[in-house]
Amino acid sequence: MKIVVLYGSTREHGNTEVLTEQVIKNLPVQRIFLKDFQIAPIVDQRHDESGFTKVRDDYEQIVLPMMDADVLIFATPIYWYGMSSIMKTYIDRWSQTARDDGYSNFKEVMSNKQVYLIAVGGDEPRIKGLPLIQQFEYICEFMNFTFKDYILGNAVKPSEIIQDEKSMQYAKTINKTLLETQ
Amino acid sequence: MKIVVLYGSTREHGNTEVLTEQVIKNLPVQRIFLKDFQIAPIVDQRHDESGFTKVRDDYEQIVLPMMDADVLIFATPIYWYGMSSIMKTYIDRWSQTARDDGYSNFKEVMSNKQVYLIAVGGDEPRIKGLPLIQQFEYICEFMNFTFKDYILGNAVKPSEIIQDEKSMQYAKTINKTLLETQ
Amino acid sequence: MKIVVLYGSTREHGNTEVLTEQVIKNLPVQRIFLKDFQIAPIVDQRHDESGFTKVRDDYEQIVLPMMDADVLIFATPIYWYGMSSIMKTYIDRWSQTARDDGYSNFKEVMSNKQVYLIAVGGDEPRIKGLPLIQQFEYICEFMNFTFKDYILGNAVKPSEIIQDEKSMQYAKTINKTLLETQ
Amino acid sequence: MKIVVLYGSTREHGNTEVLTEQVIKNLPVQRIFLKDFQIAPIVDQRHDESGFTKVRDDYEQIVLPMMDADVLIFATPIYWYGMSSIMKTYIDRWSQTARDDGYSNFKEVMSNKQVYLIAVGGDEPRIKGLPLIQQFEYICEFMNFTFKDYILGNAVKPSEIIQDEKSMQYAKTINKTLLETQ
Repeated sequence: MKIVVLYGSTREHGNTEVLTEQVIKNLPVQRIFLKDFQIAPIVDQRHDESGFTKVRDDYEQIVLPMMDADVLIFATPIYWYGMSSIMKTYIDRWSQTARDDGYSNFKEVMSNKQVYLIAVGGDEPRIKGLPLIQQFEYICEFMNFTFKDYILGNAVKPSEIIQDEKSMQYAKTINKTLLETQ
Repeated sequence: MKIVVLYGSTREHGNTEVLTEQVIKNLPVQRIFLKDFQIAPIVDQRHDESGFTKVRDDYEQIVLPMMDADVLIFATPIYWYGMSSIMKTYIDRWSQTARDDGYSNFKEVMSNKQVYLIAVGGDEPRIKGLPLIQQFEYICEFMNFTFKDYILGNAVKPSEIIQDEKSMQYAKTINKTLLETQ
Repeated sequence: MKIVVLYGSTREHGNTEVLTEQVIKNLPVQRIFLKDFQIAPIVDQRHDESGFTKVRDDYEQIVLPMMDADVLIFATPIYWYGMSSIMKTYIDRWSQTARDDGYSNFKEVMSNKQVYLIAVGGDEPRIKGLPLIQQFEYICEFMNFTFKDYILGNAVKPSEIIQDEKSMQYAKTINKTLLETQ
Repeated sequence: MKIVVLYGSTREHGNTEVLTEQVIKNLPVQRIFLKDFQIAPIVDQRHDESGFTKVRDDYEQIVLPMMDADVLIFATPIYWYGMSSIMKTYIDRWSQTARDDGYSNFKEVMSNKQVYLIAVGGDEPRIKGLPLIQQFEYICEFMNFTFKDYILGNAVKPSEIIQDEKSMQYAKTINKTLLETQ
C-alpha cells in the first residue's frame, strides 16, 4: 500500500506537519512539499479549439507519484477558512490533466484511492473548517475517491498542536488503522 | 459609492463575467482581472522573528484600489467546489498585509465594506457551491465585511449562463439595489 | 403533473405561505398544512424483532397524497436554523413507512419526484439557512428525489416577506418554470 | 459543575446512549430522556396580540433543570441528517420560553453554558452529519452558548458504536477534560 502525503504548508515543521507525522508514524510514505515545486495556476482552456496549452513547470513531478499511490493524505494549514493557495493551485490543475492526451487514464487511475485530509487552523477549526471538509467531500465524490477521514486540528503558534490532545489522539487512531491495513 | 470588481476567472468574457456584468450594469466600477497580475503565494512568516519578507509582485496594484472601495464584488468561477486558485492566492496574501507596517490600518479600512460574491459552476452550483458561500461568510465575519448577497450561477460552456434565467434575474435585482444606493 | 405542498408553519397566512403562493400561482396544487394533522414522533423499532408498532394518527392522510404527487414543495419557517419540528416529525416517520408492509413500494414510488424547498427565516436566512439546504440535499439524495431548487426568504413580522423582493422575484421565476412544464 | 444530558433517542440503551456514557463516565450527571416527556410542538404566536398561549405538558420539567446546568450535553441519533424530531420539538419551544413572563431571564440564564453535541448515524455521519453541526453552531451562537465540542459517531445496529473506535476514543478524551474541570 503506497502512501503519498501532499503538504500544502509554506512553513517547515509547522503544526500541520506535526499532526500529520502522527498519522503516518512508522509507515513508509512519500512526502511531497508543494512549496518546493513551481506550479502555475490553471488557465481554463476547456473550450478552446486547440485545448490546453502545455505548461512548463514542476507539476508533473507531483502528479505522477500521486497517481501511483493507494492512499493520499492531503495536509494543509487552514488559510482563510480553506486549503492553502498552493494546494488549491495544484488541485485546480487536475482539470487540465483530466483532458490531457498524456494522461488519458487520469480519472480512471485516480479513482478509488483512499483519501485523508489533515487541516490545522487557529480560528475554531472544528467549526469553521467544516466548509473545507464539505468542499473536499465534493472533490472526492467527483474523483471517485474514498474519503476515509479527516482531522481539524487547532493551533496557531509553532508546535501548539501538541496541546490539541483530541486531534493528536485521533491521529494516532488513524495511524493504527493505516498500520493494520499496511 | 466606489465599486471594485475582483475577477478570479482565467478566461475572458466567461460566464462569471457575463453574470457579473448584469450585476454592475450602468454602474461606474473598477474591474480588476486577477489573471492580469503576478501574485506570489503567501509564505507564512507570522512567527518568524523578522516577520514577513517583502514580496516584489503586482499585489499592491490590487490591494490599494480594493482598500479604497465601498463595495467589493468577488466574481469567480467555481473550480473544484471552491474559488479559483488565483483568487485564493490573492486572499491568502491579506494575512501578510494585515501584519505589514505599510498597511497598519488594513483591517480597519477594510472593515464594513459591502461584499457580494458571484460564483459560476457547472456541477450543481446551487448545492455544491454552498461550502464556498460558507467559507466566504467566515472570511466576511473575520474582516468585518457586510456580506450583502451572493449568486451561484449554473453554466459550463461559454455564454451558457444566459440560460440560467433565475441567476440572471437575481443579478438584475441586485443591480437595481446597487443603482438605488448609488 | 400533480403538485403537493407540505406546509410546516404553525401560523396561518404566514410569510412562508405568502412566498410559496407566489411559487404555485395559477397552478392546481394540493395544500397540506401539517399543523392540522396529528402526527406522532417516530419510535425507532428498526431493530425490534417484531418491527414497528402500527401508529394510530393522521400520518396516512398525508403520506398517501404525497406518494401520489409528481412535484413536492416543502414550505417551512426556519426555526432554530432548521425546518419546523412538525415538519421534522413528519419526515422522521418515513423511516417507519419505508419498512412497513403496507407501503412496500414507498421508496420506489417516492423516487424521482421533483422537490422544492421554500424556507423563510429572520436571522440571515441566506447564510444561516444553508445547513437546512444541505440537510435537505442529503434527504433528496437518499430518497432519490430531484432537488430542483430552493428559496431562503427573509422575514420576521407578518407579511414582511413582500419586501424581500429578490426572493419574491425568484419565486416568480420558479412559478414560470412550473407553469411551462405543466 | 452541574452536567445535564438531554437524550433525543427513542430507543433505550441505543448507540447514542452508549457513546454518551463514555463522555460522562464517573461524572455526576442528570439524564433527561426526552422520549419520557410529553412535549407539544410550538405554535408560533410571537405576533399575536395576546402572545403565547400557556401550554400544559411536561416541558417545564425539562427546561428548569436545563437552566440550572453548567454543561449541557445534547445526545441525539441522526434521523434524516438532523437531530431527532423529539429533540427539535423541545428546542423549538425555547422560542416561547424566551418570551414567557415566567422565564423573563431565560436567555440570560442560558447564556455561557458549555455545550456538547453527541450524534450517531449510520450513513456517513462524519460527512452527512456536518449540516447538523453547523445548525447547532448557529443555535449556540444565538443562545450565547460555548460550543465546546461534538462527536459524529458511526453505527446502525444496536451496540455497533463500540466498533467506532475513533469516536469512542474521542469520547474518552472529552470525558478526561470534563473530569479535570469538575
